[in-house]
Amino acid sequence: MELLKQRIREQGVVLSDKVLKVDAFLNHQIDPALMRELGHEFAERFRTEGITKIVTLEASGIAPAVMAGLELDVPVIFARKHQSLTLTEDLLTASVYSFTKQVENTIVVSTKHLSSSDRVLIIDDFLANGEAAKGLISIINQAGASIAGVGIVIEKSFQNGRRDLERLGHRVESLARVQRLHDGQVSFIE
Amino acid sequence: MELLKQRIREQGVVLSDKVLKVDAFLNHQIDPALMRELGHEFAERFRTEGITKIVTLEASGIAPAVMAGLELDVPVIFARKHQSLTLTEDLLTASVYSFTKQVENTIVVSTKHLSSSDRVLIIDDFLANGEAAKGLISIINQAGASIAGVGIVIEKSFQNGRRDLERLGHRVESLARVQRLHDGQVSFIE
Repeated sequence: MELLKQRIREQGVVLSDKVLKVDAFLNHQIDPALMRELGHEFAERFRTEGITKIVTLEASGIAPAVMAGLELDVPVIFARKHQSLTLTEDLLTASVYSFTKQVENTIVVSTKHLSSSDRVLIIDDFLANGEAAKGLISIINQAGASIAGVGIVIEKSFQNGRRDLERLGHRVESLARVQRLHDGQVSFIE
Repeated sequence: MELLKQRIREQGVVLSDKVLKVDAFLNHQIDPALMRELGHEFAERFRTEGITKIVTLEASGIAPAVMAGLELDVPVIFARKHQSLTLTEDLLTASVYSFTKQVENTIVVSTKHLSSSDRVLIIDDFLANGEAAKGLISIINQAGASIAGVGIVIEKSFQNGRRDLERLGHRVESLARVQRLHDGQVSFIE
């Protein structure tokens, strides 16, 4: 998606060969108009899939997921990393290791909002090693729902996330695929 | 806002005299079309205020804040409760106690995204004792930005948040004001 790649070139900060910071429009400050365009693109790519729910992970996945949900006219569930007092019913859980934050999180979704009749689109901000996506897949599988695919804003294609998800049989649609982070520059797979 | 009150009546769960659970459309599962309406209402109420930034708190504030930002055509910053490796620059911080989660969080915003020329609208999902809003106000004050007001989705009017924020001189606009939670029922201030 050219619009997104252009924004990454302009505002992305390469912190290391593995870490790309996009706090200017996605991970801390959010550009709502850009999010609408990302949501539109996800909706276009999955429009014929009969999606009934979108599942994402707090916090950075929420904005693009909600914009996709608005266009596909389906609810968005955000898996929680930290259990709230108001999440009291039966929970579906998975364990997810975050390389960025260097912590292991238990992510949770209430059984109330996912059922075996759901067809789910997973949306997340980054795909690196695929840990978050695999956790969400585990939760959706526990609910007996089917998975239409995984929509990613920025894929770090030099890590193993896409390969692992495709081996598990999942369709992966990434709006920007980063080939390499080097010398402060971002190269994309065109 | 009648649409919101109706949804709270239909899908809200009164867990106690103090806790209202709206996981069906705001705090866990999100209704994107409802969020768009909430965003529109916030935009209407603050349209003449010259807003340049919206500031909210992860995670449940993000969806309504982004919809308001889309309509006001301004960026949305979400304060983080947990420091990320990619948040490396100078940080504005405040300490916030969450009664719901019974934890003290340090919330952070990068100095990079807020400046003294900003005029800020704060948006959050709930107003109870006003702890989160006061933390955000502290951060915005540290940046030297001005505050146009506080937009709240659901105010628990039987707690002290509104009173405290108004005493600090802030305009509070709540889309639903809950007078009382009792016997599984929600009463609103009309």
